[in-house]
Amino acid sequence: MNLIKRSIVHCKKCLKGIHRSFSQNCCVKNAANENSQVEEWPRRVVSGIQPTGSLHVGNYFGAIRRCVRLQQQGNDLTLFIADLHSLTAQQNPEVLQNNILELTAYLLASGIDPEQSTFFVQSAVTRHAELCWLLACLATNARLAHLPQYKEKSAKMKEVPIGLLLYPVLQAADVLIYRGTHVPVGADQIQHLQVASQLVKTFHHRYGKTFPTPRPLLPDDGSDRILSLRDPTKKMSKSDSDPKSRILLSDTDDVIHKKIRKAVTDFTPQVTYDPKERPGVSNLIKLHCLAEDKLPEEVVEESDGMTTAQYKGVVANALCEALRPVRERAVSLQAQPAFLQAVLQHGAVRARQRADEVYQDVTNKLGLAVPRLHSLTRAATQ
Amino acid sequence: MNLIKRSIVHCKKCLKGIHRSFSQNCCVKNAANENSQVEEWPRRVVSGIQPTGSLHVGNYFGAIRRCVRLQQQGNDLTLFIADLHSLTAQQNPEVLQNNILELTAYLLASGIDPEQSTFFVQSAVTRHAELCWLLACLATNARLAHLPQYKEKSAKMKEVPIGLLLYPVLQAADVLIYRGTHVPVGADQIQHLQVASQLVKTFHHRYGKTFPTPRPLLPDDGSDRILSLRDPTKKMSKSDSDPKSRILLSDTDDVIHKKIRKAVTDFTPQVTYDPKERPGVSNLIKLHCLAEDKLPEEVVEESDGMTTAQYKGVVANALCEALRPVRERAVSLQAQPAFLQAVLQHGAVRARQRADEVYQDVTNKLGLAVPRLHSLTRAATQ
Repeated sequence: MNLIKRSIVHCKKCLKGIHRSFSQNCCVKNAANENSQVEEWPRRVVSGIQPTGSLHVGNYFGAIRRCVRLQQQGNDLTLFIADLHSLTAQQNPEVLQNNILELTAYLLASGIDPEQSTFFVQSAVTRHAELCWLLACLATNARLAHLPQYKEKSAKMKEVPIGLLLYPVLQAADVLIYRGTHVPVGADQIQHLQVASQLVKTFHHRYGKTFPTPRPLLPDDGSDRILSLRDPTKKMSKSDSDPKSRILLSDTDDVIHKKIRKAVTDFTPQVTYDPKERPGVSNLIKLHCLAEDKLPEEVVEESDGMTTAQYKGVVANALCEALRPVRERAVSLQAQPAFLQAVLQHGAVRARQRADEVYQDVTNKLGLAVPRLHSLTRAATQ
Repeated sequence: MNLIKRSIVHCKKCLKGIHRSFSQNCCVKNAANENSQVEEWPRRVVSGIQPTGSLHVGNYFGAIRRCVRLQQQGNDLTLFIADLHSLTAQQNPEVLQNNILELTAYLLASGIDPEQSTFFVQSAVTRHAELCWLLACLATNARLAHLPQYKEKSAKMKEVPIGLLLYPVLQAADVLIYRGTHVPVGADQIQHLQVASQLVKTFHHRYGKTFPTPRPLLPDDGSDRILSLRDPTKKMSKSDSDPKSRILLSDTDDVIHKKIRKAVTDFTPQVTYDPKERPGVSNLIKLHCLAEDKLPEEVVEESDGMTTAQYKGVVANALCEALRPVRERAVSLQAQPAFLQAVLQHGAVRARQRADEVYQDVTNKLGLAVPRLHSLTRAATQ
């Protein structure tokens, strides 16, 4: 990848990845909100990714690579595999175990550095579930039941587990237990982060200042809205019945080429970027941009004179170049499950130390008499 | 206390404390339900008591002394101070901390032996909250929202915390994390125990046999229905606005005499036991029976010829004799907070070892990759 060509620069102030064209404005609009907090709490980015299996390019650009970039930008990154969250839907235990290791392999293969970042499995750090209970005593039923994601998911279920209603409370605990200041989210997660903000406020009101209010980091490269290759009115999804609707991270170059070739576009042969009128072609342009760190205008200019059929070959090549090295490293890492487990163990020890400190502070404030588990675990690992 | 006079005997089979007159029937009625389970799971009694403060005789006979008796009968008793549960109502942190130590003192003063029983604070064992989340993914909203206690409590609130809805799920976790087979409850808790049974069933169905179905141990001495001294149509309660409605464990002999003297009875001077028609006098008889381990018939026979006014003196004396030694020991223990903390720490280490084993089994079955925290903590405490 030619670095000179890269169109993504990083804002010096907030370290967010932004397009060159936006560099003037990045921090200006958020400055008022951020200023007070920046001084008080050290910047910490917290993110969780569900081990749902069948990782596709949407997951890669929208979640995995975003975290890698945040790490590369020098952020203090806490990244966990959200296995507890995944249990709100029924899981096959063996498949879940495999998915956890697969995701671990892909995260390492994509560049997550377990020395630089704190990388672990959620269920290995007890404080997530513990803080979840404490926050559940402050979160109101009514507010949680009105969240769109809850409404949408519960509408499809015969019996709704309370875990689904509690989901955003566990998300809040995930962030607050590390005093996270920033959370990379997609637009559909903003309301869940507002639940966390509300809980911070309620907690402060009752027990004094304890947590920063976590701020969303929204992508500005469209990586949270990669569409289905077969029906570009829907998001790309692992649960789509048509496997040709998505490119998996495990797909070979050959399969990638086939799937892009069959991607639904329209009857206009030119390559133009118009997400509203031409969602199919525009989705391919977006994938191309993400794969090569380019802006749509650059891509459109470069492909001047090509038909969409020819352009599909270009997109497929770009995706192959971007995904192949990750896939190859991940396959080799997946053959070393003991190594992957050791990496996660290492991260869990580190995460526990941080989480224990915050939890101790929280329980002191609540008046709970919690013996210091932290000192025990630390002693044991020395 | 004269042991020859005691009217409570213990069923040889189930170890439950029963009145002499019932000794023939105790296990017969439950035999069919219990048989299968007795063979499979070792009998373990699990109980939690909330540190709500202002402990009164209702709490003493209905909860504290019941646990002491269960321990004396040779049961494997796991007893915890349910501080996490108490947070579903707003608590003052300092008051909560004091209440935890006060309850610890009274439990030890009443005869809980921290060597024989596993005695600790709930929040010190992470697995309660952790299992609560896992069970929350199996418990249905609809079922929880229909429980009478939830309906009653939530009706009085402007904003209902989800913790209140989740309450019975945490209760289930409290018992299942120790593979509890028996839970001493009052009649009003039976439905919560049914939630636990349902969760055991759902868990078995999905992941195989993991927990015993916990059975209720209901008191047959009426200790779960001690009434207000000022209005014997209501239960004795710490939240009653009239302090003369209850006898606190911290009340001096003098105060006990005064409160019993002012207890509401009726216009019939004889002492007769008729809970329905004469609830006030019958409540005093019940307290007398509990204080001296007698049956109502014995007490009524002994007080033949007395007026209720004279009988009140007898009841007050009986309560003073029963409560004074407990109060004196508790006061002396409360002056040693470091000792109380050490006792709770000791219990927490023991509870964690048991809970960690069960949690490890549970998470293995679910496919979660949880590093063994157990081995770390154990190593650290050796």
